[in-house]
Amino acid sequence: MTHSAMILLAHGSSDARWRAPFEALERDLQPRVEKPVVLAFMELSEPSLETRVAELTARGITHIEVLPLFFAAGRHLREDVPGQLEEIARDHPVDLQLLAPVGQHPAFVDALAGIVESRAQHGQI
Amino acid sequence: MTHSAMILLAHGSSDARWRAPFEALERDLQPRVEKPVVLAFMELSEPSLETRVAELTARGITHIEVLPLFFAAGRHLREDVPGQLEEIARDHPVDLQLLAPVGQHPAFVDALAGIVESRAQHGQI
Repeated sequence: MTHSAMILLAHGSSDARWRAPFEALERDLQPRVEKPVVLAFMELSEPSLETRVAELTARGITHIEVLPLFFAAGRHLREDVPGQLEEIARDHPVDLQLLAPVGQHPAFVDALAGIVESRAQHGQI
Repeated sequence: MTHSAMILLAHGSSDARWRAPFEALERDLQPRVEKPVVLAFMELSEPSLETRVAELTARGITHIEVLPLFFAAGRHLREDVPGQLEEIARDHPVDLQLLAPVGQHPAFVDALAGIVESRAQHGQI
């Protein structure tokens, strides 16, 4: 039984249509991986990081990695999100780990290369 | 000889530090793909889309795909960027094609699954 989970952290927006692609990512990703993967928003949209951490710890999760769906680590990831995680850790008995933004993972560069190459092939047909 | 190129389109920011990860992506990606791949910004940062299109057409490029480094297609991708491309197309003899944002390509979900799984393996060591 797994005791770890991952939270995909998106920025959040007051535009309701903005959420749908992130919810699609969460839905497409979960069946492909073993650990629980859930979506949270940094601000403006629900569920928040704290809501998700509370849900996961209630399920017995003791270790949560937070993967920011950001391309770059700006002020939000350098200051706001670490501050939120520090507060959450005070109230929940869980090991929280903030990962680098997805745009800085080698797998993301692999994905970009794949997209460029597949478009190149497409163009040759 | 290739006559097509790809522009990676990032949002842009007044925070100078925000650019670095996008420039790193451009640098890491180019040696891995055959066609020219360059970075442009929608607003607030240089080079702009128009600057990049002018550079590429001066090199003999006749077909340019624009891949938005966005997770979701919000107002920017539904309205602002198509408007910019329409204006640019008036001044430059080039075929411009706006692709879906990178977050909506299947390769991106593959990358996310890879990141989640590699972290899971890491956690088991």
